[in-house]
Amino acid sequence: MRKRVFSGARPTGRQHIGNYLGAIQNYVSLQDEYDCIYCIVDIHALTTLQGRNDVSTLQDNIREMALDWLAAGIDPERSAIFVQSHVPQVMELHTLLSMTTPLNWLMRVPTFKEKIKMQPQNVNYGLLGYPVLMTADIILYKAEVVPVGEDQLAHLELAREIVRRFNFLYGNIFPEPQAKLTLVPLILGLDGAQKMSKQLNNEIELAATPEETTRRIMTAYTDPARKYRSDPGHPEKCNVLSLHRAFHSAKLEEIESECRSAAIGCVECKKLLAQEINEALAPLRDRRNELASRPRYVKEVLEDGANRVRVIARDTIRETREHMGLA
Amino acid sequence: MRKRVFSGARPTGRQHIGNYLGAIQNYVSLQDEYDCIYCIVDIHALTTLQGRNDVSTLQDNIREMALDWLAAGIDPERSAIFVQSHVPQVMELHTLLSMTTPLNWLMRVPTFKEKIKMQPQNVNYGLLGYPVLMTADIILYKAEVVPVGEDQLAHLELAREIVRRFNFLYGNIFPEPQAKLTLVPLILGLDGAQKMSKQLNNEIELAATPEETTRRIMTAYTDPARKYRSDPGHPEKCNVLSLHRAFHSAKLEEIESECRSAAIGCVECKKLLAQEINEALAPLRDRRNELASRPRYVKEVLEDGANRVRVIARDTIRETREHMGLA
Repeated sequence: MRKRVFSGARPTGRQHIGNYLGAIQNYVSLQDEYDCIYCIVDIHALTTLQGRNDVSTLQDNIREMALDWLAAGIDPERSAIFVQSHVPQVMELHTLLSMTTPLNWLMRVPTFKEKIKMQPQNVNYGLLGYPVLMTADIILYKAEVVPVGEDQLAHLELAREIVRRFNFLYGNIFPEPQAKLTLVPLILGLDGAQKMSKQLNNEIELAATPEETTRRIMTAYTDPARKYRSDPGHPEKCNVLSLHRAFHSAKLEEIESECRSAAIGCVECKKLLAQEINEALAPLRDRRNELASRPRYVKEVLEDGANRVRVIARDTIRETREHMGLA
Repeated sequence: MRKRVFSGARPTGRQHIGNYLGAIQNYVSLQDEYDCIYCIVDIHALTTLQGRNDVSTLQDNIREMALDWLAAGIDPERSAIFVQSHVPQVMELHTLLSMTTPLNWLMRVPTFKEKIKMQPQNVNYGLLGYPVLMTADIILYKAEVVPVGEDQLAHLELAREIVRRFNFLYGNIFPEPQAKLTLVPLILGLDGAQKMSKQLNNEIELAATPEETTRRIMTAYTDPARKYRSDPGHPEKCNVLSLHRAFHSAKLEEIESECRSAAIGCVECKKLLAQEINEALAPLRDRRNELASRPRYVKEVLEDGANRVRVIARDTIRETREHMGLA
C-alpha cells in the first residue's frame, strides 16, 4: 500500500523558477512513491484577498498554475489535482474542527503575528483560523504524509496537535500527518537580495519565452564588489552562480573559477545561464503550449481530481459527523 | 409577499415553561404573518459540548425539542423546522464569512468574555466565531426578520455589521436582517431566584405529567417574608404569582388580594397554579403524546424541513461563490 501525500499551494498564477525548484519538482518526484493529492487552495487565498477586484484574477491564476504543474510533470492519471473550494466538505470539516481547537493555540502562532503586521487593515477571523483550515485540508483525505519546508514544520506540528485533540475527544478517526522535510535551495530573485516572488517582480516565469527569459536574466544583480569587467568576482556571493548550480550547470566549476580570475564577465555568465535555463525548460514549455491549446483540458483535469477526492471527503465527513453525535 | 423569519435554538431537549412562554409561543404566532424557518442549531451546541459523552444525548435532545415545538403548534406545513447540520451549506458560508469578518469585532463581544469565564477549560476557536455562524444561519436563507429578546439585540447588530461588510466587499447579496424585538416575561424557576433552566433543575417541563407538574410546583419558593400561614404575603415578590400572571389566571386579582390579606395560603395558591398550568398545557400534552406515538413522524418533519430550506441554501451558496470569485 502506497501512503497518501497531501500538499496545497495558493493560486499564485504563472509559476516561477523559485516555485519550480522549491516545490513543483518535489511534487513530481513524490508521485513515484506515494498516492499524491495536490490542491490549489483558493479558500486560503481569501484570507488575504479582499473584495471583488482582488478576486477577479482568481480563476485565471488557478488555470495558469495548474498548467505549469501539469507541464512540469504532475500526472493527473497518478495524482489528484484539484481546487480546494470544489470540495465544499473541507469547509464543513473546518467548521467542525473549530469546535475542538483551543483558541490560544491559534493566537500564539508566530506567523499569525507576522501576518497581522503585514496586513493590519485586514485581520479577519479566517486569518486566525488558517491552521484549522490547513488541518481540514490534510485530514479530510486522511493523508499520512505532508511535504514541508523547514519554515512549515511548526504549522504541521500544530496540525498534528489539532488532530490529536480531536481524536482524544471524539475517537481515533484521523491519522496524525507526518512531515516529510524537503530541503530546498533558497532561490533568490533577480535582485539577488530577496526570495524570488511575483510581488517583488524579481521572478523568472516558467512559461516565459526564451527571449523574455534571457532579457530578464540580463537584468540580474551579480556580485556587487565586481564593478569592472576586469575585477575578479566572488561567485559565492553571486545569485547568478546559485542559479547555475540550481540548474545543474555542466560548466559550474569552470564558470566559478573563470569568475574568480575575471576570465569570464557577468554578461557572458548570464547569457550562459539563460541558455541553460531555456534548454532545461524547453520540454516543459512545449508541453505547456500543447496543453494550453486544448481549451477544456485543465478544467477537465481539475474536475476529475475533485470528483476523485470528493469520494474520500464524503466518507470522512460521514464518519466525523457520526463521532460528533450529528445524525 | 410575506417576509421570511429565521430563528434558531440550541437542542436542549424537553422544553420547559420558560422556553414556552419566552420563545415557543412567539414562534407559533409569527407563523400567521411570516414565512418562518425554525432551526435546531446542533453545531452551535458543539461550542460548549466536548467529547463523545457530551454529545451522546444530542439526537434525543433534538427529537424531544422538536416534539415540544410541534405539539405547541409550530406547523410543519407552514414553517420549515429542521436541524442546522442537515444543511451543510451553513458551514460553507460560515467559512466564507470568516474571511470577511474582522477578528476584533469578535474579540470584543461581551458574551464571548462571559463565556470564557464560564468555560475557561474549553475556549475553542468556534466559541469565538459564534456570531459568524449565527450570521451564516440567518443569511443562508436570506431571512429578513429575526425575533430577538433584548439580550440578543447586540448579537443581531453584529450580524448586520458582518452582512454590511460582506456586501461592501463582494456586492449586495444579502439583506440586512431586521430585529423583531420580543418582549418576553422573565420566567424564574421554582427557586424563585434564577431564570428557569434545566441545568439549575428549577424547571417545569412542558411534557411533564399533571402529577409531576403539581409535585414540582408544590416545591416552589414563595414570598420568603411570609413565614406562617397567617402572615400577610407580598405577591409582587412571589414567583408563584408571576406564574399565575404568565398563564393568564382568571383569578389573578382575587389571588393577589387574598395573598395580601392572608386569606389564601401558599399551598392552596400553588395548587391553583398547578391546576391552571395543567389545564393550559393539556391540549399540547395530548398532541405531544399523539405525535410521539408515530415513530417516524419527527424524523420526517425534520427531513422535509431540511429539504425545503436546502433549495434556498444552494442558491445562496452559488451566488456567494460567484461573487467571491470561486468557480
